[in-house]
Amino acid sequence: MRITVCLSDLGSDPWVAGLRAALPDAEVAAWAPGAAQADHAVVWAPPQAFLDEQPRLRGLFNIGAGVDALLKLRLPPEARIVRLDDAGMSVQMAEYVCHALIRHFREFDGYEADAREGRWGFRKPRRREDFGVGVMGLGALGERVAKAVAQFDFPVLGWSRTDRRVDGVRCFSGEAGFGEFLSATRVLVNLLPLTEATRGVIRRDTLCQLNGGRPGGYLINVARGAHLVESDLIPLLDSDQLAGATLDVFDQEPLDAAHPFWRHPKITVTPHASARTDRELSIAQIVGKIRAFERGEPVAGMVDMKRGY
Amino acid sequence: MRITVCLSDLGSDPWVAGLRAALPDAEVAAWAPGAAQADHAVVWAPPQAFLDEQPRLRGLFNIGAGVDALLKLRLPPEARIVRLDDAGMSVQMAEYVCHALIRHFREFDGYEADAREGRWGFRKPRRREDFGVGVMGLGALGERVAKAVAQFDFPVLGWSRTDRRVDGVRCFSGEAGFGEFLSATRVLVNLLPLTEATRGVIRRDTLCQLNGGRPGGYLINVARGAHLVESDLIPLLDSDQLAGATLDVFDQEPLDAAHPFWRHPKITVTPHASARTDRELSIAQIVGKIRAFERGEPVAGMVDMKRGY
Repeated sequence: MRITVCLSDLGSDPWVAGLRAALPDAEVAAWAPGAAQADHAVVWAPPQAFLDEQPRLRGLFNIGAGVDALLKLRLPPEARIVRLDDAGMSVQMAEYVCHALIRHFREFDGYEADAREGRWGFRKPRRREDFGVGVMGLGALGERVAKAVAQFDFPVLGWSRTDRRVDGVRCFSGEAGFGEFLSATRVLVNLLPLTEATRGVIRRDTLCQLNGGRPGGYLINVARGAHLVESDLIPLLDSDQLAGATLDVFDQEPLDAAHPFWRHPKITVTPHASARTDRELSIAQIVGKIRAFERGEPVAGMVDMKRGY
Repeated sequence: MRITVCLSDLGSDPWVAGLRAALPDAEVAAWAPGAAQADHAVVWAPPQAFLDEQPRLRGLFNIGAGVDALLKLRLPPEARIVRLDDAGMSVQMAEYVCHALIRHFREFDGYEADAREGRWGFRKPRRREDFGVGVMGLGALGERVAKAVAQFDFPVLGWSRTDRRVDGVRCFSGEAGFGEFLSATRVLVNLLPLTEATRGVIRRDTLCQLNGGRPGGYLINVARGAHLVESDLIPLLDSDQLAGATLDVFDQEPLDAAHPFWRHPKITVTPHASARTDRELSIAQIVGKIRAFERGEPVAGMVDMKRGY
């Protein structure tokens, strides 16, 4: 069995070493043009030329959570895409979202501004029951985020394409449930996969349904920039319909230094840093998946090409 | 039964109204000099004159979590002090501590500084297993905080005067366990009651034991200012022995506008805002405690005067 590693600008050496150690019976090497045909590939943002040169690939193991970029490419005829299960990302997502949520709810940004002026002053607490937190996407990441938020006694809602049940979360699904989900949500957390069905789902008309249509909604986007119609956001913040946004993902990354999101007083920008793959956990998962694949057993995280995730 | 309400600068009207509604058989009134003798008092930072004028008080129901200020006063001969169980404070403490912890661990303050410069750059993640979080004080607040932190997969340690067990928390107790607790702790969270035994417990020699004696310790103080020897803190930050501190409580409150804590780059100051009493929950709890008291049943939260909490 031959495994090739093609990780764009990420360093591939430690991945190659880790895979070799875990799969001593396999040939593992970093990909270079003209390399021998491999059975499986461990990839991150591979170029089309890589896929064109490797027509015998059967498994494409993606080391990020989202496979939208991979699905835009022409794939080898037999290739199946396999996602990681979690690889240390869900706890990081839970941290990121809880930090952004608590920071907004408790006005810690305001307290820090007060501190810069040496000003001691208590801010009137907001009512937790007025802060419904709605998580879109209830996969491994969304479920963990929803449970982490629930622990802080916020009302938690979830929305997914198909029916899901998560303890302590009021779940909605499909187009039929979307309006009611948005209306009961004040802080919208996006963890959807990016597909043709979800592109642009966060836009003026959906954002205006938050919080029962009243002002005060807040957006936390940790999925993909293209879920948000970016040009709709700033007018809604400037008119006070929305209270703020924390954004980790953008249409164009890196976000241009001149982009107005960087310095908007109601927007917090982070550089696609909400959750990174943990290499050791990822290698262990990929090894397990390759072994299952080779034995013809079911492989968790196999992407449904039609559904798009 | 007569109940008097003496709440310093907090407005007492809504407390009087809430207690009257819940205890229709009692006479409830805000205290004023010369008022009739009461059986029970609901208090927050009462003056000595109040206690001197009310020698028949049997129950003193304090609406904050800490009773250190009350214990400094001369109390009526029969009076017992009763603390609230929680009254909405533990979830707020969990929020406050998790926000400060995640903000430090994930360097979100650094990302925000980058954002002000329009700078897109990823920071190398720290290892979660290197961030032992040690909670001093495992009462209702400390236990909830420890459990909330554990949910983010940090190693969690706890220390209390007497043996306690908390699921998922490595518990130490007494003087014998203090050194090992400090050494395994990188982020120290203080939720101790303030007593003669705990005054000044956070000082140069204890802070220098954090993180196995290596630099990198971090302090989150949400109990009382007098737990910390304030003059020890800034030298340890400036020498890089400590990485930072988030402080909600101070020797003198309000913190003087000229105090160096306000603008120190490694200190985050909030104005004793980590957890406020929820009035409705408090009234419901106090009513239950008064009824138990009157029936001669055990009352949860009865303060041990000798122990000091």
